Amino acid sequence: MNAPVFTASGLAQRFGLALRGEDREVHGVATLAEAGPTQLGFLANPRYRGQLSQTRAGVVVLRAEDAEAFAGSALVARDPYVAFARIAALFEGRPARAAGIHPSAVVDPTAHVDPAAHVGPHASIGARSRIAAGAVVGPGCVIGEDCEVGEDCELQARVTLLTRVRLGKRVRILPGAVLGGAGFGLAMDAGHWINVPQLGGVVVGDDCEIGANTTIDRGALGDTVLEEDVRLDNQIQIGHNVRIGAHTAMAGCSAVAGSARIGRYCLIGGGAGILGHLEVCDRVVVTAMSLVTHSIRTPGEYSSGTPLMDNRSWRKSAARFKQLDRIARRAPGGGKDDE
Amino acid sequence: MNAPVFTASGLAQRFGLALRGEDREVHGVATLAEAGPTQLGFLANPRYRGQLSQTRAGVVVLRAEDAEAFAGSALVARDPYVAFARIAALFEGRPARAAGIHPSAVVDPTAHVDPAAHVGPHASIGARSRIAAGAVVGPGCVIGEDCEVGEDCELQARVTLLTRVRLGKRVRILPGAVLGGAGFGLAMDAGHWINVPQLGGVVVGDDCEIGANTTIDRGALGDTVLEEDVRLDNQIQIGHNVRIGAHTAMAGCSAVAGSARIGRYCLIGGGAGILGHLEVCDRVVVTAMSLVTHSIRTPGEYSSGTPLMDNRSWRKSAARFKQLDRIARRAPGGGKDDE
Amino acid sequence: MNAPVFTASGLAQRFGLALRGEDREVHGVATLAEAGPTQLGFLANPRYRGQLSQTRAGVVVLRAEDAEAFAGSALVARDPYVAFARIAALFEGRPARAAGIHPSAVVDPTAHVDPAAHVGPHASIGARSRIAAGAVVGPGCVIGEDCEVGEDCELQARVTLLTRVRLGKRVRILPGAVLGGAGFGLAMDAGHWINVPQLGGVVVGDDCEIGANTTIDRGALGDTVLEEDVRLDNQIQIGHNVRIGAHTAMAGCSAVAGSARIGRYCLIGGGAGILGHLEVCDRVVVTAMSLVTHSIRTPGEYSSGTPLMDNRSWRKSAARFKQLDRIARRAPGGGKDDE
Repeated sequence: MNAPVFTASGLAQRFGLALRGEDREVHGVATLAEAGPTQLGFLANPRYRGQLSQTRAGVVVLRAEDAEAFAGSALVARDPYVAFARIAALFEGRPARAAGIHPSAVVDPTAHVDPAAHVGPHASIGARSRIAAGAVVGPGCVIGEDCEVGEDCELQARVTLLTRVRLGKRVRILPGAVLGGAGFGLAMDAGHWINVPQLGGVVVGDDCEIGANTTIDRGALGDTVLEEDVRLDNQIQIGHNVRIGAHTAMAGCSAVAGSARIGRYCLIGGGAGILGHLEVCDRVVVTAMSLVTHSIRTPGEYSSGTPLMDNRSWRKSAARFKQLDRIARRAPGGGKDDE
Repeated sequence: MNAPVFTASGLAQRFGLALRGEDREVHGVATLAEAGPTQLGFLANPRYRGQLSQTRAGVVVLRAEDAEAFAGSALVARDPYVAFARIAALFEGRPARAAGIHPSAVVDPTAHVDPAAHVGPHASIGARSRIAAGAVVGPGCVIGEDCEVGEDCELQARVTLLTRVRLGKRVRILPGAVLGGAGFGLAMDAGHWINVPQLGGVVVGDDCEIGANTTIDRGALGDTVLEEDVRLDNQIQIGHNVRIGAHTAMAGCSAVAGSARIGRYCLIGGGAGILGHLEVCDRVVVTAMSLVTHSIRTPGEYSSGTPLMDNRSWRKSAARFKQLDRIARRAPGGGKDDE
Repeated sequence: MNAPVFTASGLAQRFGLALRGEDREVHGVATLAEAGPTQLGFLANPRYRGQLSQTRAGVVVLRAEDAEAFAGSALVARDPYVAFARIAALFEGRPARAAGIHPSAVVDPTAHVDPAAHVGPHASIGARSRIAAGAVVGPGCVIGEDCEVGEDCELQARVTLLTRVRLGKRVRILPGAVLGGAGFGLAMDAGHWINVPQLGGVVVGDDCEIGANTTIDRGALGDTVLEEDVRLDNQIQIGHNVRIGAHTAMAGCSAVAGSARIGRYCLIGGGAGILGHLEVCDRVVVTAMSLVTHSIRTPGEYSSGTPLMDNRSWRKSAARFKQLDRIARRAPGGGKDDE
């Protein structure tokens, strides 16, 4: 691969930015601290403003108010991080996946693969499933029965869509993710568990992204739903019949139990948990490793847990936590009236 | 697939239920809220009793005490959820897996696959492993050395049994699960880690179910053991030499560290953790995201953590948690005598 | 496989131990409680000293101070657990992987596989990737573009190295792990998420070990780095541009968010989380399920969370936690001056 070369003026024109200072060639992107004279850096977080005077970057993407302080070539952007993301994408060099079905792939005769789709080595596609034009089914993927993969989806490698999973357009799924497995539905009968059949599916909206080794169960009755542009990081667990609103992003290792409904534009921190059957409204932020134990009806930021302490001090606080009701009842004004 | 059709009277006879009202055809199942005149719904949770008067369901499975309030056709059951699960299974339509080994599968010459087992595309089976009659080894599964897959087991897709994993009968394993990997046994020697060999295996009892991307390590000396009818949800981690009692169910993302022993009929909540070498007796419930730090010898429900709060209030409580020992010592009657 | 047989005197000579008592044959290893007369046991944890008088083990590895109390054959070691680990490794019997590429594997013409490497069934290797001598690429592994697998690495089965992953020597990776996936880099643009390209890679030092279903994202700009001899258990999540110091060990289900830097010789407990952009110095211990919310500059042990309680008592303490600021302000000497 020959690395592409651009000019600052060309980038300005392409992305609607204002060029200040002389035009320069851009051979790549880097952080302000590490960029060299043929590279483009960016300043989005004010915390790094001090690096502006020392950077060796040939071109810097920044806000108008920071441009004054910079003597070199600058691309002025309303949102430098977004502008940087778009420029960096020019250097991404994604591998091309030619249309066609690899000879080692196994496709059920009742499945339909568009001639403009790519099916990689050791993939298998089950009965009645459909792969649309421009879609990539990477090496080792397993598509089960009655699934639909929309246009320009990318299942990178070793992704499983088990049963009744329907992906919109441009959905990207990282390796090891499993969609459409049976939800965890159990009933106790005479001392033994019996499975409650999981007859629904999974519906994933356009432009969603699903991280590595993330799992999304299919619904029991009705579907598990991700609306458009939902972003799930790695190792997330989504239970059956959950619904996640458009543009919500969840960080790694978070989890949502069955039948919970999450709103739009929510941000769920890493390792956070949301119990089953709850409702979380739009624009809620849950901080890392918090547990949501009741429905949330007001936008805002929510937390649980205790702060990090050295273990010796923590042991003292933890021991006192167990006595907390007694301590509170003895405190001046304590007692049952203390709501 | 033609959808099957049943009658309410036929279902009553088949599952030992009492039919009240006229007989009707049943073409499928749904929730009370969504069921139509050819579908069967159910009322198990009293919370939904109010839906009974509005449901359009042709037939409803319910308790005797709820039957009075319902004018339509009803199937009366002692446990409507169990009855519903059994009826719904008639509509499940699992894909048939024909006996035989797919030509793309790779089977070691010292392995033995029963002629009545199914081995799917791109599966591989290692030395001295045995696959029993009726078992399904789905696409992309990897069976390593010295494993046994019992009768009627179902390894759905991309399951790995690495070394010395022995499954009983009717064990179901969802995609991405890894059983029999080396436990995390380390010893520090002159500033470097060395591995402690993991010479044991994994034993899984009859009727167990193991969720997607769940991991169960093999024992160091002796085996890691799941007794019969243990139910593990997705993304659970079971350390080496753990023993889990029969009929215990663990929700997603929970974890058990090495050599812990969990009793029978326990319920472990999502994201909960159990430290190593502990013992948890029968019939213990651990709530979601709690950490079990000591052995539990009395059945009951156990918890740790703090409640969810808006972030601003939480910050105040969290700051006070750090001062808790000081606050307690100054409270009336506080101090060391305060056990 | 014929099980190997050793003598106590041979083991003493091989590992620099002192033999006390008569020489004996050793056919295997076991715990003190379960070892028989032809097996070797060990006493490392003083807690099990009481088992010494009852053990039927033919030979016991122990410290000099414990040897007095034992009448049988003993191998005296400075660190019995390390000595035991080395002896046990003689009985491990790892499957041999013959050099060569399995006919079902798919190797890109621009990739290079050393003739002394093993590539198993249904593996695929992408453009410009290199597999060194002695390396094992197990069944179902997917190696993407521009990856390097060093000498004597072992990718056990179904491992994915997606893009720009470079492994040192003797790295062992368990099934289902995913390295080199795109980090979770997002920017909000006019109400939609756009991806920030992840142009870096993953660098893994010599002798690292990576657990089953663990995920390590590639860097956005620059690399995600594991220094030598880092040990990661199962289901760990490492964000983009994280750096983990040499000899650090992390237990199952722990997670490190983007751009955090962890020192050398740290021990991170199971389910613990470390927020992004933090620095943790050398020799820090974080206990299980704690959340690191600020940088740590002093070696030692750190914790967060509350102790496990019966649910009824816990509910009382949890309710009081919400009132903690009010309780503290009313306590004698409470108020704002209370730092």
